Formats: sequence, structure tokens, C-alpha cells
Amino acid sequence: MKIAIFLFDQFTALDFVGPYEVLTKLPGAQILLVGTEKKAYSDHTGLKIPVKHSIDEIDQADILLIPGGFGIDKVLSDKRVLEWVRHINETTTWTVSVCSGALLLAQAGLLTEKTCTTHWRRKDQLRKFPLTVVDERYIQDGKFITSAGVSAGIDMALYLVSKVAGDQAARMIQLAIEYDPKPPFDCGSPEKAPEEILQKLSR
Amino acid sequence: MKIAIFLFDQFTALDFVGPYEVLTKLPGAQILLVGTEKKAYSDHTGLKIPVKHSIDEIDQADILLIPGGFGIDKVLSDKRVLEWVRHINETTTWTVSVCSGALLLAQAGLLTEKTCTTHWRRKDQLRKFPLTVVDERYIQDGKFITSAGVSAGIDMALYLVSKVAGDQAARMIQLAIEYDPKPPFDCGSPEKAPEEILQKLSR
Repeated sequence: MKIAIFLFDQFTALDFVGPYEVLTKLPGAQILLVGTEKKAYSDHTGLKIPVKHSIDEIDQADILLIPGGFGIDKVLSDKRVLEWVRHINETTTWTVSVCSGALLLAQAGLLTEKTCTTHWRRKDQLRKFPLTVVDERYIQDGKFITSAGVSAGIDMALYLVSKVAGDQAARMIQLAIEYDPKPPFDCGSPEKAPEEILQKLSR
Repeated sequence: MKIAIFLFDQFTALDFVGPYEVLTKLPGAQILLVGTEKKAYSDHTGLKIPVKHSIDEIDQADILLIPGGFGIDKVLSDKRVLEWVRHINETTTWTVSVCSGALLLAQAGLLTEKTCTTHWRRKDQLRKFPLTVVDERYIQDGKFITSAGVSAGIDMALYLVSKVAGDQAARMIQLAIEYDPKPPFDCGSPEKAPEEILQKLSR
């Protein structure tokens, strides 16, 4: 099972590593990190991840995963990337995104008339496309699964594993990464956050 | 605020990146990735993270964070690392671990008579030291905070932020990473897992 993860400068590290940690444990998974060039890409803090494959080298994948990050806006106008995403999507069983990665799928025209989600701060931007945006942790529409911000990629990846390899495989991975979350606060979504915090982050 | 994160070959990527994503958002944080050498370290899947600082160059940190991973066992017998961990701990306000990273703190003699935790599969190993192991997502004892397996580092890091910069700072970061977890299954701890899955993973 070939899983292509597209990286770009200014991606968000946890958008990528959350699902990565889950999907590397999927039996038979072969994960390919792909970028426009073979080089190290930096997240928005300068953390570098070397990418071994350029988009010119990868023409098929069973799963395509697009993480998000501040850098996604620049990628949205890269015609070479859009063409690659459209082409790979024709070969996939599942095409998925984390956080603002949904914008790239939308810009490539893949989410037209689909129901999807993204980071809460990106929802207005995603609504500009002809699609339906919902408040869900992750949402499946056909072969597309989009997820909410950053940490939501872990939940989405476990769901994806359950679809690909069954519930037992997903449960086993959940236990392996001891994913029994207990955040010390209950402030993980805009509905739960005090107005003051929401205002500060919405600027 | 200087935060040193120690990496080693065969670390677990999410042990490191979960808290990293949280702590980079802590106001004034300067995160230093540190290894025995300046080189790229690989997680157990071959994902490489370049490390800019060798332990010889870093002699102080406000926070020391030790992630876990299969490779921790090899590090436990590295006297140079143990000496460095002991020395840095003398300079820290907080010394914390994720997953099997607690074993390195214990081996360095820092957790003697402390109450702590680790990945569920590592608890018997940690119990060989003169300390108390508890079943908690994370546990603070004085300036030490140890956490359960892999994904528990996110919860621990949010708690750590609340101690360092206050509850509002932690809530703001939780909202920024949209950490409102909704795992599709409830199988994230050995108490919740079916016996069959537990057996398979315990082998």
C-alpha cells in the first residue's frame, strides 16, 4: 500500500507526524514523502524534514495525504502541484487532508460538491469553493476524508486505518500509541473556547 | 526560555513532535534539538530529523524534554549522555519525559523515590528502579513531569505550558492546534483494550 504525503515549506509538523505515526503502523504501508523538489522542507518553526521524492517521480499512490500549514497558501497557486494532486487522485483509493491541507484539494477541484472540513480558522477560506463545510473532527465523503486542525489528523488516520485494514488494526495502533487523550483543559474547539481567547487567535 | 529536546536514533516521531508543536507556541520559547552528535537522527521508520546541537555544546536549559522510542535502551548505557542529562537537570526548572523517555531519567538517577509514569509496555522495566509507577496520562512530582506513551506528550506539554505561562496560554495553544480529540475507537489504554489486542501487542 503506497501512501504519498506531500510536504511543502511552512507545513505544520504535527499535521504531518500525527497521521504519519499512525500510518507507518498500517500493515504493508510504504510511506513516500513527496515535495516539488527532493530537499528538506521546513515547518513554520524551522524544523527540517528531508523529502526523498519529487512529484515528477511519483505517479501513483493508494493513499494521498495533504497536511496543512501557513505555507499552503503559496502552494495553491502552483500549477505543477495542482496538476500532480489531480493526477495522483485519479490513482488513489483514498485522498485525505489534515487542517488547511483541504484547501489544496479544493483548489485542485477535487472537493467540488463534497462535504468537508478544515482548521476552524480556515473555514471561511474553504467556503469560497463550491462545497459544504461542516464542524466535524473529520468527515468522509466518498473516497475523500478531510479533518479539522492540526491534532485532528491523528483521529482521521485511525479512522482511515479502520477503513483500509479493519477496526481491529485501528484499535491496535491506537493502543500502541497509547492514544487515550486527556487534555488538561477543554478548549480545543472554537465552540468551547472563551470569547477572549477566540478573539486573540482570530486576529 | 531555553527548551532542550534530546534526540537519538530510533526515537518515536510523535513522542517528539506532539510536545514540540505545543512548546514552539509558548511565548519566548527557544527550542534546541540536541543529540550526542550534530547529525540527522532517524525515528524507527527512517524519518530523519537534523539536530543542530551536540550535548557538548549545551550546558543549560530551562526545560529538558526526553522523548521515548525503541532506541532508548541503547542510550541507557551511554555514560556521556547520562552525565549530560544529570548536569542539565541541575540547571532546569522543569525536567520532563514522554513515553519510554522516563527510563533515561530513571537511569540517570533523577527519578529515585519519585512518582512517575511511562508507556504501558515499559512500566515493568521502569519498576526496576527505586520509584513509584502510576497509571496516569502524565504525572508531576516536584519539577519532574513524566507521561504515558507516545500521544500523551501532547497532554503533558499543555499541562507544562500552564505551569510555565498560565492556564490561558495553554488554552490558547490547545485551540490553535484544535486539540479536541475524538478517537474513533476507545482502545487507547490497556484497561480499555480487548484481551486479544493486548496479547498481540505485548508479545
